[in-house]
Amino acid sequence: MTIVGEFELIRDLLEKVNPAADTHAGTGVAQGRGVWLGAGDDAAVVDGRRLVMSTDLSVEDVHFRRSWVTFAEVGERAVTGAASDLAAMAAAPVAVLISLAVAPEEAQAVLSQLGDGIKAALSELGVPLVGGDLTASPGPIIIDVTVVGEAEEPVTRSGARVGDELWVTGVLGASAGAVRAWRDGGEPAPSLRAAFVRPTARVKEARWLVDRTQVRAMIDLSDGLAGDARHLAAASDVRIVLDLRLIPAHPDLPEEDAPALAMSGGEDYELCFVSPPGVIGPCVDDFRERFGIELTRVGQVEEGTGVVVVGAPEGQNELPMGFDHFSARKGSC
Amino acid sequence: MTIVGEFELIRDLLEKVNPAADTHAGTGVAQGRGVWLGAGDDAAVVDGRRLVMSTDLSVEDVHFRRSWVTFAEVGERAVTGAASDLAAMAAAPVAVLISLAVAPEEAQAVLSQLGDGIKAALSELGVPLVGGDLTASPGPIIIDVTVVGEAEEPVTRSGARVGDELWVTGVLGASAGAVRAWRDGGEPAPSLRAAFVRPTARVKEARWLVDRTQVRAMIDLSDGLAGDARHLAAASDVRIVLDLRLIPAHPDLPEEDAPALAMSGGEDYELCFVSPPGVIGPCVDDFRERFGIELTRVGQVEEGTGVVVVGAPEGQNELPMGFDHFSARKGSC
Repeated sequence: MTIVGEFELIRDLLEKVNPAADTHAGTGVAQGRGVWLGAGDDAAVVDGRRLVMSTDLSVEDVHFRRSWVTFAEVGERAVTGAASDLAAMAAAPVAVLISLAVAPEEAQAVLSQLGDGIKAALSELGVPLVGGDLTASPGPIIIDVTVVGEAEEPVTRSGARVGDELWVTGVLGASAGAVRAWRDGGEPAPSLRAAFVRPTARVKEARWLVDRTQVRAMIDLSDGLAGDARHLAAASDVRIVLDLRLIPAHPDLPEEDAPALAMSGGEDYELCFVSPPGVIGPCVDDFRERFGIELTRVGQVEEGTGVVVVGAPEGQNELPMGFDHFSARKGSC
Repeated sequence: MTIVGEFELIRDLLEKVNPAADTHAGTGVAQGRGVWLGAGDDAAVVDGRRLVMSTDLSVEDVHFRRSWVTFAEVGERAVTGAASDLAAMAAAPVAVLISLAVAPEEAQAVLSQLGDGIKAALSELGVPLVGGDLTASPGPIIIDVTVVGEAEEPVTRSGARVGDELWVTGVLGASAGAVRAWRDGGEPAPSLRAAFVRPTARVKEARWLVDRTQVRAMIDLSDGLAGDARHLAAASDVRIVLDLRLIPAHPDLPEEDAPALAMSGGEDYELCFVSPPGVIGPCVDDFRERFGIELTRVGQVEEGTGVVVVGAPEGQNELPMGFDHFSARKGSC
């Protein structure tokens, strides 16, 4: 199975706009000329100062529906989702820029509520809004958030080595579970709804892990564990083996759907990281005490390519893969 | 006359999301905590490294129509328009991030053409694309460009002093003239069309002016001369007097419309700057020889507030003001 769509289109765009001489072969990812790390990871890093930057676009009726969430929740979630890419690099947020498009006739009310949510998210992150753009929308509410952070040693996706362990923070699948309930015409359980509308960017958790343990590679779970593990595997040129029996599904998910939602549901914004064998295990209790969430080993790194899932029930061969707006359209509206 | 709408809404949003203690009184503009200059100028500047950042959102049927322009032109214009905010700070571009939303069924073709234009603009600027986001759009094409630059001494809007001269680069009103022709159901003259689809970010011109002359305050003309002069006046706490007889209207504009289009037409992306008396005059020939465009003195700085226009034909009292998506809707689609 191949994930096609968004990633290929982004790579095509990158290959098109960045001169081949300045990119890593075959990726379109910028390097050189002051760019320490270009597109292709969670965020870009510009050299000299080790700045980390990322941008995240939310569009009404693609990423959220106004019948599901309040505008305050849209604003908070948009900022938090973008900041999650900084967490994935173990970067500290410095500043945020936000572009908004809203239909003029509802601008005042919508912006006021979006602002409440944006403020809550910025306050949680401890960073200021330093810029933005506001324009009329012909229809959907559009919110694009650019986050700028800094990190002395950003953690990329490419450091995984054969024999390493794969870990995740928190529990998975809740956000996708909420979306499924809404799409089925129902209301999600409050805990699932909260996971969708008010995710946490694991900025402090990432810093803690990097400061106290050894993190070789990291990504945030925005496309779903299977899809994001695939990104890690590709960037590190290894195979990642996920054990379905180990995946920590959110306890309030319907039992029959829990494995698939936990494996393929997007927008959990938990961290997925790779560490040498035996390093993380002794820190699990400290981490739980400090942050109130679990660290769970979900797989390991082997020679090869791609992602392999083991531990699936008899007869289940089809792997649930990550969310992709341009192909599967799973796990979101 | 008061410009209401976008600026107030942005200020309201800024005031809402940035804690009052961290902002300049009454503006919502962030300061302190590592932010050297927050929102409220052309771009944000984050301290330590004097990074300059700005974001610029283009939405189909608000900023452009596909019957007017090619997608390549949309991409090029979006990047150039964002980079113009760096020029206005006399900053050198370092990196660009782009978020795109396109309907899935046309994504491949549209992205390919957008990419051609984005590449052309990045090549002209000499900077890489380091990140971005791509998502499905329920309808309009959306392109949000974040530009990151650096400047040892960013030129702000707030340095104008009583007695200074106000200057502009190039000729004005062509972009608005093209939009007017399209809206009237016709085709603009090729020179006007070119000004709309392929503006220039005056990055090199700004550096030249800062290096060789004395620039006290600067802005790029995105909202129209009258509106942008108003921003300069407000930021510098002065009055700006514009002389309608001096405004360099594009020579291909219809004679009767030229003054209003040159005064109020948005998206020329020329520089408007303030210098001490007598400083710029001796440099006009050198500037023309180097860049092939004019420097024109269009007004002066006085005590007071706001913008005053002199030299208007008898009986014309109503001032054409800058473009604002949320109120006047002049000068664009």
